[in-house]
Amino acid sequence: MSEAPRDIENLIELMAKLPGLGPRSARRAVLHLIRKRGLLLAPLADAMHAVSVTARECITCGNVGTTEVCDICASEKRATGELCVVEDVADLWAMERAAVFKGRYHVLGGTLSALDAVGPEELRIPKLIARVADENITEVILALNATVDGQTTAHYIADELEGRCSVTSLAQGVPIGGELDYLDDGTISAALRARKSV
Amino acid sequence: MSEAPRDIENLIELMAKLPGLGPRSARRAVLHLIRKRGLLLAPLADAMHAVSVTARECITCGNVGTTEVCDICASEKRATGELCVVEDVADLWAMERAAVFKGRYHVLGGTLSALDAVGPEELRIPKLIARVADENITEVILALNATVDGQTTAHYIADELEGRCSVTSLAQGVPIGGELDYLDDGTISAALRARKSV
Repeated sequence: MSEAPRDIENLIELMAKLPGLGPRSARRAVLHLIRKRGLLLAPLADAMHAVSVTARECITCGNVGTTEVCDICASEKRATGELCVVEDVADLWAMERAAVFKGRYHVLGGTLSALDAVGPEELRIPKLIARVADENITEVILALNATVDGQTTAHYIADELEGRCSVTSLAQGVPIGGELDYLDDGTISAALRARKSV
Repeated sequence: MSEAPRDIENLIELMAKLPGLGPRSARRAVLHLIRKRGLLLAPLADAMHAVSVTARECITCGNVGTTEVCDICASEKRATGELCVVEDVADLWAMERAAVFKGRYHVLGGTLSALDAVGPEELRIPKLIARVADENITEVILALNATVDGQTTAHYIADELEGRCSVTSLAQGVPIGGELDYLDDGTISAALRARKSV
């Protein structure tokens, strides 16, 4: 397919590698960008260049930022002693949007997976265990996804940290606004098992 | 929402303006880009910069390219005398992928629309009429979308060009691989009206 000049074809091919875009939607996006080249394409090129130069992982928690130690780890307003463990940076951002957790984070960078040969060494689990000792952590909150791999990883970490600090995990149950009729059986039985008196 | 540093938030906001991406998928795409900043983010920034500098519209047909006159208009292999009229550049590329039309194109840049106050002057219709005279065009093929606005525009152009050249339009009917059960009534009745002897 070489219906467009080489520069533009090259841009379409790179855009098609983004998650959520295929060849067709990449072509549509590139045409949109060319139509708005002053308003959108040039600023986007600059923004990408800026991020490609400045973006880096926090050496402490694995969050993405523009400094060696991320804003959250560097903030003095954050409670010490509490660590929230998440699979990746998107989950950290989701927790931050909820704006209820005032401690610090630890990004694993994935989950344990026998199929994909991901062991503890491939994740930031050794670093987590070191932080628990070094930073006098009293509580580790496991905010891992409620998937099989996520829960396997949660169990592994809970075992590793046993006796070193208290380990908790997010409650499972009916989501806010959720209708029972649309929930899966697993969620309903988890919510029933964890029922509370009102 | 300021869970990420300013540079990264800025990139997310710009990405969310792309067609097909919303705030959530833009965030996911940006995290993907940061994870692959050497392999994908930096090349993408360069490719966008290159296109933002070089991309321009062909002064003859409205196609997108990197030269004043696009490759198709400049090509000596293209048949003169035949013009294929399309709504926008994406349609021109779709025609080129089919690789059956050997003439040249004319991109209208939209369709007539009473609701959106788009008249002939807002499109490249005057330029089309001028080209028909200047380039000794014998046939104008209307490859407009089979929407109400597309067909209104096709009728308008056919009226304007009456007596100056022959005007044809793409056949309507059952698409290749199409199953009658899944086709809308309009397509089936158009296909029946245009039936051919076998």
